[in-house]
Amino acid sequence: MIDLGAAKAIQACEILDELGLDCWLLWVRETDQMTDPALRLLMAGDVVWPSALILTRSGERIAIVGRFDADGLPAHLFDRIVAYDEDIQPQLVAELTRIDPQSIAINTSRSDVGADGMTAGMRDWLMSLLEETPYLGRLTSAESLIQRWRGRKLPQEVACIRSAVALTERIFDEIAAELTVGMTEREIFDRVQAKVERHGAGFAWHRDHNPAVDAGPDKAFGHVGPTDRRTRSGHLLHFDFGVRVDGYCSDLQRMIFFGRSAEIPEEVDHGFRTIRDAIRAAAAVLKPGIVGADVDAVARQAVMDAGYGEYMNALGHQVGRNAHDGGTLLGPRWSRYGDLPDGRVEAGNVFTLEPNLKTASYGMISLEEDVLVTESGCEFLSVPQTELICVEG
Amino acid sequence: MIDLGAAKAIQACEILDELGLDCWLLWVRETDQMTDPALRLLMAGDVVWPSALILTRSGERIAIVGRFDADGLPAHLFDRIVAYDEDIQPQLVAELTRIDPQSIAINTSRSDVGADGMTAGMRDWLMSLLEETPYLGRLTSAESLIQRWRGRKLPQEVACIRSAVALTERIFDEIAAELTVGMTEREIFDRVQAKVERHGAGFAWHRDHNPAVDAGPDKAFGHVGPTDRRTRSGHLLHFDFGVRVDGYCSDLQRMIFFGRSAEIPEEVDHGFRTIRDAIRAAAAVLKPGIVGADVDAVARQAVMDAGYGEYMNALGHQVGRNAHDGGTLLGPRWSRYGDLPDGRVEAGNVFTLEPNLKTASYGMISLEEDVLVTESGCEFLSVPQTELICVEG
Repeated sequence: MIDLGAAKAIQACEILDELGLDCWLLWVRETDQMTDPALRLLMAGDVVWPSALILTRSGERIAIVGRFDADGLPAHLFDRIVAYDEDIQPQLVAELTRIDPQSIAINTSRSDVGADGMTAGMRDWLMSLLEETPYLGRLTSAESLIQRWRGRKLPQEVACIRSAVALTERIFDEIAAELTVGMTEREIFDRVQAKVERHGAGFAWHRDHNPAVDAGPDKAFGHVGPTDRRTRSGHLLHFDFGVRVDGYCSDLQRMIFFGRSAEIPEEVDHGFRTIRDAIRAAAAVLKPGIVGADVDAVARQAVMDAGYGEYMNALGHQVGRNAHDGGTLLGPRWSRYGDLPDGRVEAGNVFTLEPNLKTASYGMISLEEDVLVTESGCEFLSVPQTELICVEG
Repeated sequence: MIDLGAAKAIQACEILDELGLDCWLLWVRETDQMTDPALRLLMAGDVVWPSALILTRSGERIAIVGRFDADGLPAHLFDRIVAYDEDIQPQLVAELTRIDPQSIAINTSRSDVGADGMTAGMRDWLMSLLEETPYLGRLTSAESLIQRWRGRKLPQEVACIRSAVALTERIFDEIAAELTVGMTEREIFDRVQAKVERHGAGFAWHRDHNPAVDAGPDKAFGHVGPTDRRTRSGHLLHFDFGVRVDGYCSDLQRMIFFGRSAEIPEEVDHGFRTIRDAIRAAAAVLKPGIVGADVDAVARQAVMDAGYGEYMNALGHQVGRNAHDGGTLLGPRWSRYGDLPDGRVEAGNVFTLEPNLKTASYGMISLEEDVLVTESGCEFLSVPQTELICVEG
């Protein structure tokens, strides 16, 4: 796992300043049992006792941790490591009093799991520890901070994602060359997983359903594992697959047709072109400053204009340390997405583009590409699938 | 990974009834990014969209999940799986209205990370979803429920822990036979980790410092990785090591002396016997009904009575799905432990016993055993270390 903690810490302090926030407090414990997702961008290791990691607008970085955890912390990450024995409160209050921040950002968010790493019990406890101080009233959400921080990938982070995407594409190429009609979803799934392991990579999401392998017209796509359903001539095969390389993820969908190119039914061809073109249309408008919901609307409308029903997921989510990396979402303004579709796209964001549709006779058609937002538009990190991959015999 | 979800679900409903709680609501999302520890006792897989898993006192089990997650759920775990598309609120309120619970336990706890799986943002959101209903006022903490539920190991869970303990002991035996004076902490660490992998087991905590390997008098014990410090004749070597087998953990400490048994300095011998006997004394009082702090006090007092300073950790924590499994703690009433030391020991609990002390010239002496609480006392799951393991040459 690549260690970008120091670089991300510097970036976090810069974003604090940009947002006019005085400090950021990560308030965590027993992080091998429940891990604040934001912690993982700073350090790979864990703390056991209740710990306060403080980053300030001026660039100072302080860790207040239990004595047993102090030696295990990455020393280069912090200007000062304060160890306590029985009770963290005196040192926590002392540090805050010294810094005297007017705002203390904490990891709570209604909409964004990546920015919501503080548990309810930990927040209650923090508030009681600060009860007699002016700092209780200065707590605020770190949501904007974390979203910008996770979302603006550093060049080293983009390089990791590129590696993950390249490996995913390589495995797609390999499996496409091995496929034969009659293989079951489970056989194909096992082969792909063996390749991931052979390459020493990890899985971008739970390996129970990574890759998702969906054969034929009747399989509902979703977060579900493979079955013993067999591939058949004239049918489609769908993959949703992502790996993890150096701690960063890819997330791609590809479609295979079992038969010769000339045998692709018009219904399938029309659906495939609709999805491919919806991705192109969305990519054409994706650039810094645009609101997530407006990008979603372009692809959604394209699919519906082509005569298909509306798909019930967002067009695209960010990708990074997690396959679903939080922050601005290219999605519709549905309740379950909270305010994520209202976010504005920034340079350095990495998004999926993944519209889909349902055909009458051949099941679902869905593709997914990964794109990097640049200063003026976006760049495909994957080589977009422009034609169905045909597997004969 | 062994699937005890259905058995644990039945047990949870029984404990709801015992506590007079009408239902338990797990309220989670994107669980591969941030996982409520309680979820893992029910199912290994993840949900992506906001999800409500409801268990009732009468034994009913309902999942309200996003459409894409529904097919991936373990169907045998739930009587009913309700899928939603845009907004979970209508189905959530409908299910609660149908059940009409007088109390709804949710996963928030000040002291226990294992019972504090709901994030602050998710609790805020849940409360807003229930604002217009009578159920907002019926939310209560699931802490007691979860502590009893995690803590009362089923026979199948104890069997997994026994396997993990047995493997840990086997690896200790193997490494003790391979040790030679002059090996560095890092060399020993690498050998132990290779053995864990060869046995196909996992690590009970972060592999950065598992095993902890501490050579000589100057190394501070704690959650810290190995160094290039060399073992030396006449010095002690300390291990803190745990593996994961079928999803369950072990956590043991062992001590080696480099030299012949007859060469053990009196200071070391006295310290070792003090720790060994403190463990025996604590085990002698450990039984259902005793308060955690009272067990801690027995060992703590024994060490101090023998002329040593007080150790700055708890005597013992529970072990299970995590090395630190939460619930009643055999510990002192220090602020950082919250109310865990006030809990009462129950049959089926598995605890570590791990007092330690600091000698003047040979560094720390620390042992750790794993014990199962029975109906009338406790049973050692590990074979207690009663003498220093001597390695010559």
